[in-house]
Amino acid sequence: MRAAVMRNHALVVADIPIPEPGPGEVLVKTLACGICGSDLHALKHAEQFVESSRRAGNAFAMDLARDVVMGHEFCAEIADYGPETRRALPVGTRVCSRPVLMRREGPRTVGYSNEHPGGYAQYMRLSEALLLEVPNGLATETAALTEPLAVGLHAVNKGRIESEEVPLVIGCGPVGLAVIAALKLRGAAPIVAADFSARRRELATVLGADVVIDPATKAPWQSWREVAAWRDQSRAPQLPPWIAGPALRPAIVFECVGVPGVIDQIMGAAPRGTRIVVVGVCMEADTIHPMLGISKELNLQFVLGYTQDEFAATLRHLAEGDVSADALITGKVGVEGVAQAFVDLASPEHHAKILVEPWRS
Amino acid sequence: MRAAVMRNHALVVADIPIPEPGPGEVLVKTLACGICGSDLHALKHAEQFVESSRRAGNAFAMDLARDVVMGHEFCAEIADYGPETRRALPVGTRVCSRPVLMRREGPRTVGYSNEHPGGYAQYMRLSEALLLEVPNGLATETAALTEPLAVGLHAVNKGRIESEEVPLVIGCGPVGLAVIAALKLRGAAPIVAADFSARRRELATVLGADVVIDPATKAPWQSWREVAAWRDQSRAPQLPPWIAGPALRPAIVFECVGVPGVIDQIMGAAPRGTRIVVVGVCMEADTIHPMLGISKELNLQFVLGYTQDEFAATLRHLAEGDVSADALITGKVGVEGVAQAFVDLASPEHHAKILVEPWRS
Repeated sequence: MRAAVMRNHALVVADIPIPEPGPGEVLVKTLACGICGSDLHALKHAEQFVESSRRAGNAFAMDLARDVVMGHEFCAEIADYGPETRRALPVGTRVCSRPVLMRREGPRTVGYSNEHPGGYAQYMRLSEALLLEVPNGLATETAALTEPLAVGLHAVNKGRIESEEVPLVIGCGPVGLAVIAALKLRGAAPIVAADFSARRRELATVLGADVVIDPATKAPWQSWREVAAWRDQSRAPQLPPWIAGPALRPAIVFECVGVPGVIDQIMGAAPRGTRIVVVGVCMEADTIHPMLGISKELNLQFVLGYTQDEFAATLRHLAEGDVSADALITGKVGVEGVAQAFVDLASPEHHAKILVEPWRS
Repeated sequence: MRAAVMRNHALVVADIPIPEPGPGEVLVKTLACGICGSDLHALKHAEQFVESSRRAGNAFAMDLARDVVMGHEFCAEIADYGPETRRALPVGTRVCSRPVLMRREGPRTVGYSNEHPGGYAQYMRLSEALLLEVPNGLATETAALTEPLAVGLHAVNKGRIESEEVPLVIGCGPVGLAVIAALKLRGAAPIVAADFSARRRELATVLGADVVIDPATKAPWQSWREVAAWRDQSRAPQLPPWIAGPALRPAIVFECVGVPGVIDQIMGAAPRGTRIVVVGVCMEADTIHPMLGISKELNLQFVLGYTQDEFAATLRHLAEGDVSADALITGKVGVEGVAQAFVDLASPEHHAKILVEPWRS
């Protein structure tokens, strides 16, 4: 089968064997697969990516001397069933799945693995038990957004946002945009979002942000303060006389950048008692000043991934039109175009999500 | 009045003016005042202490070229009332108070200040509104433990510990011991605690720790796992087959060391979903690996101080004998002995809390 393969720290097009589905597994044809920022990181900083995963539980154990086919945000079509399968869905059914194989020896990652090719190839093996049928009528490319959007839903769930809290989303790449979509779905308002890129700020508005800030021209927290005052002053807590200005609703920040320094920057600028949800994946060592957290009694909640229920709920929301996320898709390529797409995605001005369609000629 | 004064980065005994109580303020005679680890830090790393406070809200603004009288863990006796006071308590009444002056221009710190001498001097000014009468019969030296113990109560409250969680206290200096006392009061069990010092481990047991570990001979988390298994297996969540070993109760860690590297070490060793309450005050920059937090969805709650209610509750608990903390007091000195006490406290083997009694001859 045709695949965009990570080999010797580069992406090359190659013919590789079609994977064999094991017991309880299914062979699927990949219809569309989004390129994730983590894939860019895994290509550029492969050793660091593997080492950082090793320190953190080794979910992404890869031998970089061997081929890896990445891609974990996909919509696919059932092509064949392996042994010991229930076969409830007919061959040809379109499905989404978490990028995981549930094997007897434990869960195995699809996409960051030497054994289990991801969605940048024409075929994958998946676990039958995890398949979710794409509801009739939902476009394949929209269904492929289930995985990245589920990340946002999980972050908002895990952050346990409360109705009086005013969210500030720092960084409007695909992760930040997914968080904005989930906040909108939850009814959070107003949603404040910040990004240096005009294109991303535009997408933030499309996905539901109410106030969008360019940090180059205005401090995000200044804009946040302007909209976080209680409208119903009777709900505002009584402030001691030495605190100037209006009582503000509590702050919840979603860190969606994942670059060293951002957490400490947020800790420095955030008001007392702010809850910070760390969604951006920073793989490097990072410096914080604990005193900032202590003196303001900040809370940091690190989050990752999503549950099976959150994944299924996201697909349902997309199918029911609760979330309009198609604007995220800014390009499509075949396997030949993956290497260039990785280059293009480095600039935030042009792209949000590029889909790989491995059967595209 | 006689005082142990921080002057030119040293502690010297000096005669300084008795402070004048302002409107709503009271002049008190200091009966006993504990030496806090933060005071040791403030003496040794004075510039860093002030700078770190400045970055974090400037509660401890001090001009180091001028005298500072430290001491914020005190029991005192009302000596005289300033103007505009209600005078509900007779002169001679023993009182405790948060080390804060509630002034019209905002709260001002007692003890880390050029203007408001703390408990290493014979007199202080305090705010009448914050005074709490020491219940009849409670020893003065025990009442002086109210402040450090309130820190532990606040940490446990703010950590919102739940009955199924098994606490691990890292570091059994005065802060860790206060946390252990508050956990015991809350009925948490078993309480696991770790410290390299034999003396501190002994005190941890006295204050209520059930399992006490020397990290030099055994990994704290290993001991924690041994006691954190569900006794009632019907309450344990069903584990997927690839997770070996028994289901464990959730972990809540109290970081009571406050030295760079400890947070990251805990993040590396903690089980998935652990909640980490940061009580130790690390004033330096610190390095963390966010990926550890992300991959295990850890939560970091930074805490500081206590509320007025928590302070009052702690004094009540001491008076009612709910907490026996006298073992914490390992020495007493007059103002002449403060400089040597600071030296002695640097070794964890000999001391926990040394009280300054400024009227001691």
